[in-house]
Amino acid sequence: MIAGMETLTVDQKAALCLGADFWHTAAVPGVPSILVSDGPHGLRVQPGAGDHAGIGGSLPATCFPTAAALASSWDPDLAREIGAALGDEARAQGVGVVLGPGVNIKRSPLCGRNFEYFSEDPHLTGVLAAALVEGVQSRGVGTSVKHFAANNQETDRLRVSAEVDERTLREIYLPAFERVVTHARPWTVMCAYNKVNGIYASQHEWLLTTVLRDEWGFDGVVVSDWGAVADRVAALAAGLDLEMPPNLGVSDRAIVDAVADGSLDEAVLDRAVARMRTLVERAHRSDPGDAFDVDAHHALARRAAADGIVLLRNEGHDPEDRILPLHDSAALTVAVVGELARTPRYQGAGSSQVNPTRLDVPFDELVAALPQATVSFAAGYALDGPGDRALADEAVALSTGADVVVALLGLPAAQESEGFDREHIDLPTAQLMLLSRLVDTGVPVVVALAHGGVVRTDPWEQRVAALVECRLGGQAGGGALADVLTGVVDPGGRLAETIPLRLADTPSHLNFPGEEGRVRYGEGVFVGYRGFDALDRPVAHPFGHGLSYTGFDYSGLTVDVDGTDLTVGATVTNTGGRAGREVVQLYVGDPEASVARPPAELRGFTKITLEPGESRTVSFTLDARDLSFWSTARGRWVLEAGEFEIAVGASSRDLRLCRTVVVDTDPVRTPLTADSTLQEWLADPDRGPELRAAAGPGILQDDELLRVIGNFPLGRLAAFPGIGISWETLTRLGA
Amino acid sequence: MIAGMETLTVDQKAALCLGADFWHTAAVPGVPSILVSDGPHGLRVQPGAGDHAGIGGSLPATCFPTAAALASSWDPDLAREIGAALGDEARAQGVGVVLGPGVNIKRSPLCGRNFEYFSEDPHLTGVLAAALVEGVQSRGVGTSVKHFAANNQETDRLRVSAEVDERTLREIYLPAFERVVTHARPWTVMCAYNKVNGIYASQHEWLLTTVLRDEWGFDGVVVSDWGAVADRVAALAAGLDLEMPPNLGVSDRAIVDAVADGSLDEAVLDRAVARMRTLVERAHRSDPGDAFDVDAHHALARRAAADGIVLLRNEGHDPEDRILPLHDSAALTVAVVGELARTPRYQGAGSSQVNPTRLDVPFDELVAALPQATVSFAAGYALDGPGDRALADEAVALSTGADVVVALLGLPAAQESEGFDREHIDLPTAQLMLLSRLVDTGVPVVVALAHGGVVRTDPWEQRVAALVECRLGGQAGGGALADVLTGVVDPGGRLAETIPLRLADTPSHLNFPGEEGRVRYGEGVFVGYRGFDALDRPVAHPFGHGLSYTGFDYSGLTVDVDGTDLTVGATVTNTGGRAGREVVQLYVGDPEASVARPPAELRGFTKITLEPGESRTVSFTLDARDLSFWSTARGRWVLEAGEFEIAVGASSRDLRLCRTVVVDTDPVRTPLTADSTLQEWLADPDRGPELRAAAGPGILQDDELLRVIGNFPLGRLAAFPGIGISWETLTRLGA
Repeated sequence: MIAGMETLTVDQKAALCLGADFWHTAAVPGVPSILVSDGPHGLRVQPGAGDHAGIGGSLPATCFPTAAALASSWDPDLAREIGAALGDEARAQGVGVVLGPGVNIKRSPLCGRNFEYFSEDPHLTGVLAAALVEGVQSRGVGTSVKHFAANNQETDRLRVSAEVDERTLREIYLPAFERVVTHARPWTVMCAYNKVNGIYASQHEWLLTTVLRDEWGFDGVVVSDWGAVADRVAALAAGLDLEMPPNLGVSDRAIVDAVADGSLDEAVLDRAVARMRTLVERAHRSDPGDAFDVDAHHALARRAAADGIVLLRNEGHDPEDRILPLHDSAALTVAVVGELARTPRYQGAGSSQVNPTRLDVPFDELVAALPQATVSFAAGYALDGPGDRALADEAVALSTGADVVVALLGLPAAQESEGFDREHIDLPTAQLMLLSRLVDTGVPVVVALAHGGVVRTDPWEQRVAALVECRLGGQAGGGALADVLTGVVDPGGRLAETIPLRLADTPSHLNFPGEEGRVRYGEGVFVGYRGFDALDRPVAHPFGHGLSYTGFDYSGLTVDVDGTDLTVGATVTNTGGRAGREVVQLYVGDPEASVARPPAELRGFTKITLEPGESRTVSFTLDARDLSFWSTARGRWVLEAGEFEIAVGASSRDLRLCRTVVVDTDPVRTPLTADSTLQEWLADPDRGPELRAAAGPGILQDDELLRVIGNFPLGRLAAFPGIGISWETLTRLGA
Repeated sequence: MIAGMETLTVDQKAALCLGADFWHTAAVPGVPSILVSDGPHGLRVQPGAGDHAGIGGSLPATCFPTAAALASSWDPDLAREIGAALGDEARAQGVGVVLGPGVNIKRSPLCGRNFEYFSEDPHLTGVLAAALVEGVQSRGVGTSVKHFAANNQETDRLRVSAEVDERTLREIYLPAFERVVTHARPWTVMCAYNKVNGIYASQHEWLLTTVLRDEWGFDGVVVSDWGAVADRVAALAAGLDLEMPPNLGVSDRAIVDAVADGSLDEAVLDRAVARMRTLVERAHRSDPGDAFDVDAHHALARRAAADGIVLLRNEGHDPEDRILPLHDSAALTVAVVGELARTPRYQGAGSSQVNPTRLDVPFDELVAALPQATVSFAAGYALDGPGDRALADEAVALSTGADVVVALLGLPAAQESEGFDREHIDLPTAQLMLLSRLVDTGVPVVVALAHGGVVRTDPWEQRVAALVECRLGGQAGGGALADVLTGVVDPGGRLAETIPLRLADTPSHLNFPGEEGRVRYGEGVFVGYRGFDALDRPVAHPFGHGLSYTGFDYSGLTVDVDGTDLTVGATVTNTGGRAGREVVQLYVGDPEASVARPPAELRGFTKITLEPGESRTVSFTLDARDLSFWSTARGRWVLEAGEFEIAVGASSRDLRLCRTVVVDTDPVRTPLTADSTLQEWLADPDRGPELRAAAGPGILQDDELLRVIGNFPLGRLAAFPGIGISWETLTRLGA
């Protein structure tokens, strides 16, 4: 029994490990209740005990950009700042733990919840999420990193088993959790609904205890996703401390009964209770906060949204030939087209839905940002239903007389939500037909996209003058768009996920979302750009891509190798006529690996602002882990000595500076046994010659034959009649 | 104890289950020895006990086309005829069992042993292999269908575990074995070297007993691949009867010891002994045959090779514009280029290597086939080593004055063998450079390819006038090539595997050949054309493709549905000016399936010969199995009622006639339980309304919310506070 436990009865202990209602933990003697709230990009505090399903009206809160938009900023400082603001809002509303961020990897663009997740890349996800967690927790409010683990789809999410090998887990699906846990020490981790290799995440001892606690040192509470627990006692034993919400007494009773009949060691319950005490103490250590500064937070939300807007296209060789940024003048006529300019789409549906403190309307913001110009509006299409000829005609008429058309396109809210996956990645047909007509007017068209998951831009984008991707930018997204289009802000965003030419090109395509309760992660580590690049498959826009209104030159790559530590330096120069922001990206490849590795993997990035003509040298450090792969056979990270490719650039396919370096380390050796192949024996610098000498004349002299039977285990071969390698030889060699 | 067993001691029984030497089974009292021999496309009887590794000189035998070439014939009658010839040669040489055919599916073009296998498609493989087995066994000689199962690579072949789900096994990797076993009743089945899902095939009770014997009714002997047994006792218990070759007494001793200490039931040994007795009886039932007719078999080999040559390209809109067939005349000058025209490549290396009775030289055959023309030769390149400038210059000079160049290109023998996989699918650089120079002369170039596995034809084939693919056509391949090029024979071959544009396009690419002892079959059932078509990925030449010297029109599709049986008819007309052979192919698709299914799968084919203007109506029958998928969850084939697409055509991408039919059958129902989702409950025609009525007002009235939480199991949802579906309701509904 842990000290302090003796004052609680088993009933009380069981109660503490279960919610009291939808959003409150239970109060037991000496342990008050705490309030938790959804809130990866804004709080969703429900008054009272919560509605029937926990999804409904909530108190006003700042709706910051969704994770998909925030990830496009590639800016951990910004994520930290937003985290701190979320923490302030949480304290003001009495929230002890904010239920976020979601760090699941975007395995398929179809995942309905991708707007809540950061990226297809675990490094980018981990760095940004860790910063967000640090920000929230710097205000004395906890976080809940979710959904642990391999929750990469909504289809059958409460039952499906993610069938994924350990190397893929270790390299793709776990590292973001690992970074957040080891760097930012979140108060809680939320388990996923799904099974992982046949075992519910809520009952997965390897995940919840072996990896999370024993390996990564997690010391907080593991909380269930709401309703994720199938077997309360098994979950408790596996390391799940807190079940939410309460389930009509069933789980309490199960715990109490299991302790009573001895099938659950009370020490296991005590362990969870101790963690719950610590969590509650942490939450009650801070005073309730003051009301937060609504205006300041809205301004932050605007800055953040602009920082995540990705300029994908801005046709023209020279800056003066390009349509963006728009220059305000009395002579300028702008036709703003699209219902989304009047009825903005700024967040996704489901548990993350925020009741915003205010809401920027893109059209209004454009009018305000272009005070001299003539800016007019036509809806062009309706958000729901089929194309509306009259609306389209009106928009085409409006556009025909304009100097530029700004078309706001995107996905209707009904297509993107927690709870189900998308079925395609196309924009609505009505919008595409309208766009075609707008382009046909001959007036340059700027398209701004609002959507959570990836939408296809090929082939229509070839016909537009400029394309910006806003994702779901939160309540100030409208102002942010105006800032970017008018050049008040240099477009700071870079793609956190590849835009494929076709859905069928995505590496997980034929294995998503699985069938009959199982989803095979058949693409292994080749998720996102790792897969596109390994197959050299063309894409619409690569991971990491995004334009600026200025230009950047890369030079002076330096790579210092010190054992297995590398220091990489590169100089970036603003070669254009205005200040701008660049995301300098570091990729590493291991061309000689004994396992199939992606050609290049993101291992570092930094976002810098440069004045015209200004140069800055950025520096990255890499260690052995950054060069290693997870060896499932050996159960550890393995660094293989040899060549590594170090590349610095502006996207996964725009590697401006490359260098091959040799990293020296002890070779990875496997002891030779009878199960080692003839080839493996012969390749060994010591044992190979011994074997040749001992075997005498025979097959070892026949190179052609060696190629045919070289992959026979030596022990198996030695049993062949007349092979010339005797058991005695094998025994003497130690096989 | 089985009757007749009592006369043998345990030692003798153990001995009978093990080879006496490399190629003979053991003789024990009352059971004589039999001789077995490698020989899927020709016998390889080694004099005496065999050489040290069983790979070396052998008695002369007819080298028929390899399985890869035979498969291109799409002609089961031909396969049966060759089988009978093999049987005759076996009897003439005292062979009791021919060790073949190999029916493994071509998962990757890199598999080093693909020349020994038929196709990427299980139906085509199964039909041809069953015919071959019938042919051999019609002569009183046994066969050994191999390698059972999931042996689709040479890399680490004795240790690697094929990680493959049951649906993929059942639909892709097992059906060819299943068809051969159930239709042709082979005397033996040979187990594979590799592991399947972690268990050695030689010890895989599910494969060797549950599926092979209990489900398919196999009544013969399971023999190990040579050296495939890791644990003799475990293998015997799993259903492996005969281990080959003997292994220095170790296995005998292990069996005897296991019976002695009770760890092996002697009845298990008796079962294997009984099967061995039956096998030996079968083998000794036939008299030794006479010497076979070398000339007749050579003629058969020539006909077979021609029947498998695939005309991939023959540029020109009208027949008279096309370079092929070549018309003999005194005015014709033909430059035959390529060392392969003088030194033919006609079989692969490894255990299947035949010592041919004679060998056609392509150049000589072309000279003979064009008696009036001037036919000259230049080597152009050497089979080994880098490009040879002098050889290439000579070939270009010879070609410059010719009317047509016939370039024989292909892979050197060292690149294709049992024992290792290929690393790329390109022709040797020296040959490609030579070809480029030949094309540059402006003289039309006909390329003939000799190789076992797929070679890339893009982009160079765009520049040649014609392209024929001969694969490894056996000892008479040279004559067959002359027959096809001169039009004596209409090119009868169709591709039995897709030719991709790039290796990286193949569905298994990033999962081949695996790593650290495991290979993930991540593409699942989407092997070969199933994957290319599902992803709508362009290919160089699709599965089933091949041109004729005449043309065919398809018309009059009929589909009669009788319950779950379908009869499909189509009329094919020879629209050209000469007789020709066409392979009419039937594909089936299930567009509405609840699992991910290929767009179309080969379910029937027939090869017909038509005179000019002749029409023939072909007919196919399909049953429930042809429309079904394997449900791993249900452990059986499942036919889902609804629409099916029936298509008849000349390749998987040249479907000339298509019809959608509705097949009606009982719906597949799963009993509703607490683990069934809210959506599943509501979708049920009976229980859905009951649930709505019982639940009263609440979430069931909120469609938007239903989309978010509809995939919650009802039991999980009912435990939420205030959800409006009580435990009592659930209990009453039977959940």
